[in-house]
Amino acid sequence: MPSYTPPTRDMQFVLHDVLRISQTDTPGYAELDPEFTSAVLDEAGRLASEVLAPLNTVGDTEGCRLENGVVRTPEGFREAFEQVKAGGWPGIDLPEEFGGQNMPYIMGTAVGEMFSGANQAFTMYQGLTHGAASAILAHGTDAQKATYLPRMTACDWTGTMNLTEPHCGTDLGLMRTKAEPRDDGSYAITGQKIFISSGEHDMAENIIHLVLAKIPGGPEGIKGVSLFIVPKFLVNEDGSLGARNGVSCGKIEEKMGIHGNATCVMNYDGATGYLLGEMHKGMRAMFTMMNEARIGVGMQGLAQAEIAYQNALAYARDRLQGRAVTGAENPDGPADPLIVHPDIRRSLMDQKSFIEGARAFLLCGSQMIDQSHRGKDAQAEGMVSLLTPVIKGFLTDEGFDMTILAQQIYGGHGYIEEWGMSQYARDARIAMIYEGANGVQALDLVGRKLAQDGGKHVMAFFETVKTFLKENEDNEALRADFLDPLKAASKDLQQAGMFFMQNGMKNPNAALAGSYDFMHLFGHVCLGLMWAHMGKACHEALGNGTTDRAFHEAKLATGRYYMARRLPATKMHLARIESGADTVMALTADQF
Amino acid sequence: MPSYTPPTRDMQFVLHDVLRISQTDTPGYAELDPEFTSAVLDEAGRLASEVLAPLNTVGDTEGCRLENGVVRTPEGFREAFEQVKAGGWPGIDLPEEFGGQNMPYIMGTAVGEMFSGANQAFTMYQGLTHGAASAILAHGTDAQKATYLPRMTACDWTGTMNLTEPHCGTDLGLMRTKAEPRDDGSYAITGQKIFISSGEHDMAENIIHLVLAKIPGGPEGIKGVSLFIVPKFLVNEDGSLGARNGVSCGKIEEKMGIHGNATCVMNYDGATGYLLGEMHKGMRAMFTMMNEARIGVGMQGLAQAEIAYQNALAYARDRLQGRAVTGAENPDGPADPLIVHPDIRRSLMDQKSFIEGARAFLLCGSQMIDQSHRGKDAQAEGMVSLLTPVIKGFLTDEGFDMTILAQQIYGGHGYIEEWGMSQYARDARIAMIYEGANGVQALDLVGRKLAQDGGKHVMAFFETVKTFLKENEDNEALRADFLDPLKAASKDLQQAGMFFMQNGMKNPNAALAGSYDFMHLFGHVCLGLMWAHMGKACHEALGNGTTDRAFHEAKLATGRYYMARRLPATKMHLARIESGADTVMALTADQF
Repeated sequence: MPSYTPPTRDMQFVLHDVLRISQTDTPGYAELDPEFTSAVLDEAGRLASEVLAPLNTVGDTEGCRLENGVVRTPEGFREAFEQVKAGGWPGIDLPEEFGGQNMPYIMGTAVGEMFSGANQAFTMYQGLTHGAASAILAHGTDAQKATYLPRMTACDWTGTMNLTEPHCGTDLGLMRTKAEPRDDGSYAITGQKIFISSGEHDMAENIIHLVLAKIPGGPEGIKGVSLFIVPKFLVNEDGSLGARNGVSCGKIEEKMGIHGNATCVMNYDGATGYLLGEMHKGMRAMFTMMNEARIGVGMQGLAQAEIAYQNALAYARDRLQGRAVTGAENPDGPADPLIVHPDIRRSLMDQKSFIEGARAFLLCGSQMIDQSHRGKDAQAEGMVSLLTPVIKGFLTDEGFDMTILAQQIYGGHGYIEEWGMSQYARDARIAMIYEGANGVQALDLVGRKLAQDGGKHVMAFFETVKTFLKENEDNEALRADFLDPLKAASKDLQQAGMFFMQNGMKNPNAALAGSYDFMHLFGHVCLGLMWAHMGKACHEALGNGTTDRAFHEAKLATGRYYMARRLPATKMHLARIESGADTVMALTADQF
Repeated sequence: MPSYTPPTRDMQFVLHDVLRISQTDTPGYAELDPEFTSAVLDEAGRLASEVLAPLNTVGDTEGCRLENGVVRTPEGFREAFEQVKAGGWPGIDLPEEFGGQNMPYIMGTAVGEMFSGANQAFTMYQGLTHGAASAILAHGTDAQKATYLPRMTACDWTGTMNLTEPHCGTDLGLMRTKAEPRDDGSYAITGQKIFISSGEHDMAENIIHLVLAKIPGGPEGIKGVSLFIVPKFLVNEDGSLGARNGVSCGKIEEKMGIHGNATCVMNYDGATGYLLGEMHKGMRAMFTMMNEARIGVGMQGLAQAEIAYQNALAYARDRLQGRAVTGAENPDGPADPLIVHPDIRRSLMDQKSFIEGARAFLLCGSQMIDQSHRGKDAQAEGMVSLLTPVIKGFLTDEGFDMTILAQQIYGGHGYIEEWGMSQYARDARIAMIYEGANGVQALDLVGRKLAQDGGKHVMAFFETVKTFLKENEDNEALRADFLDPLKAASKDLQQAGMFFMQNGMKNPNAALAGSYDFMHLFGHVCLGLMWAHMGKACHEALGNGTTDRAFHEAKLATGRYYMARRLPATKMHLARIESGADTVMALTADQF
């Protein structure tokens, strides 16, 4: 049976040894001392490993069933959801005013990683609710907030995001769902939405759908799209539930993975909807959800890699097969454990060095969100806006690749469902697709974010790297292992950016043909920077006589691996980028 | 509905424009003129696209069912199997003496790619039979050949390979299945084998299991392993079927993919077995099957990439989403097709350039097998032995990655089962695992094959590249696009080999820690060499006034893409290799 061990030790290291969160001036961080965060993470970790993880296989095997319009979640999901609610976890970083715990976003990220790692499909029910609540919080009227947020913060009511239609996903301007104004100020929503995660289920009293639709007579295309609140049950003035609204689940999809989450076709048949935010500005409101959701999806990439790695590691230590080439290491046994073999190590180190680097990156990005939201720090806002497509695209691509590496360690046992490794790979696969397929993330990064505000955020990123290198240039312990590789990788990234500037103006394809490689190149530099920070923190801890020497030494060794073995990928991405668009665009569509 | 178009045009190009097979002196090749091969490929392609491909989804959805010891294959499989048999396809390259068609192996490969691409799970039933027949052909007595081969060539009886046991896969020396000699010269086989593809099913009158087992009192470990023929039904002297043997299917596995093929737990309970080949030399006999099977698995990697690519391409041409950044290309429609977008192109070109390079590589390797088997050419035998792990490991890793790219083009539609893209990815995943997991292929390559016969085969490979570069050094049309990148990549490969020589002797881990990267580096150089050959052939065809200009121009453009965009991966692999074993082996098992 697969198992999950909460990575709280590693989280504490990132939060306190690297980011030193309780010593920063980010609002709300002063109270995040090691004892407090440890208590929160331990409690969340216990729930993740003891309650959510055991239901992961159940969710995959049973899936969701649609019966007479009602979706039944897998056995045990309802009880587990009640436990998550009872712990107040869904509202961990939502305002106290609406029943939340008002902790910083960074704590929500750390907890979310554990919940997602233990059971991604299950955790999506609360994740989507959080996203919908955030959008209402940002764009709702006081009355809307009062009506929906207390119940959504508690997850008594869950939420959804309704964007995609059968003929349009990325290109939402093509949308056909319409919202016709009624005399009472509400709208009649009619149309079909697909791929609606958590669209219908049996774990909540009500489901609050946020639906994009066009008001007839509005502007063409994406500029005529508005956002609506469409509750499954209408809400009476006293907050009690009224009539069933004209929205129903027509079908649940058979998917490659995340079977425990109901992916629904939602039919709106003159359903009552309430405008959320401004008319025709629906995309802006939806992006409040989407940016947060994208970071959450990047987190899922990390989370699946973590649980897959944990189980692969256990198998590699346990399974006896072959002998170490340098001499038997388990001479009394019939064979040595897999972990003695260099190629198994290569695989485990690829996984471990990605996971720990990604975790630091994600928590660092979450801190920027707190600086931006709580501290009104425009620089942090710009930076996290730049990094969001990198977090989403790079972490989910790599996260999936790592689940495949982990699965591979099991050999044939990885391919049969019994050992659970297949599920991690199948579940991780979706993260590369939803909330904007990774190609769209790359387009967002290169086509929009690089040039945003005159390119000042990417310049600030380079400045951050440069400052770090400068501040530590006398650090002999860091130089060869961390600083030199980071410098080289950062130079590759700058050179790629330069190539786009020089060629992209006259031929946009020259930049866009390299967008995917740029996203990965950027991701590697980010993880390289994180590892350099972590390397520094470890040397300091070791110099200060840490009581956890083995941990800090392992961390240093893992960082050295990343810098030596993963970071050289930047050269390949640069070469691909610099080859330009000619070979990419050479064929006519017919010639393929 | 997914569809399959047989890539016969491309196969004809490789066979006749590149390899010029009918003009070589490989025995049996003289009759393989373009008309003949075209007729064979067209007929096989028709069967693949019209009969096998439509059953692919059925096989995935229905899977196999074990009922009272009998395995039921999916609806339609039996009828399709009869059609394959009626066409004589299972025996295409087996000797006429046993009812085969005696065509060269290269034709079997081309046909096999189409069958596997159309329906991998289905094609495995005949693929395993072919492997088992090859082993009997190479190691059987005349009586054994006469008894089994005619029926196996026709696939009236199918075959299996029984290696793995619950506690041992790669390390077969740990095997427990025993073969106790009986007075009549037969053996009583007792033990359990797992992961037996096609182990039990309802499409053949008899199933001939080739089983590895230990004769008590023999040498310890792998040197005490012998190979046995264990028929499901014993065969009477007159060739009719006798009593049911003591072998049964205890379970079929739930797997990530290839649901249409029954992966069985096989229980041997004093079953009657007949020694195949020499006592205690079972591994040698099994390797006759395994080498062939490994090339066949490499082919599966290509085949799944091909069908996934075909469907992704169709979707990219059809699905309207967004506008070309350089101006609308479908101004009268609501949006442009996906294929206008540079990042979609990048993905399609990655796929196309891999697939066409891999096909050439595989057919070139198949020609070496014919030179080796039919021509008794020891050099060719050595070369294909060197390249076998590259074909298996590189083509299946890349093949899987390409199915993931293809699936990604569908966005959310790629993740739901309805469109079929998930199945290609799930089916392709197994090829990285079975017939020796790819890490084992890398170990075989670096730990054994590089040094085989004093390293003369790898030297011969470098000589082949050098000779090609030398012979074409005045070819201006090839130089910048093909020759220079090939030269650089080949230099990276040589440098990696040098690193192993200099460091591997004193520390074997230094070589083995780089084995996986070396396998990929080698694979890229092989595909680069193939593309250089294809580039040359295209320039010649264009110079000679080809009537198929669009084809040859597209081929050239695709080759340029590979050389410019994929081959730079060699630098990354070299950097990883040259970083040595230190970072890979730094942690103790406890420190992970």
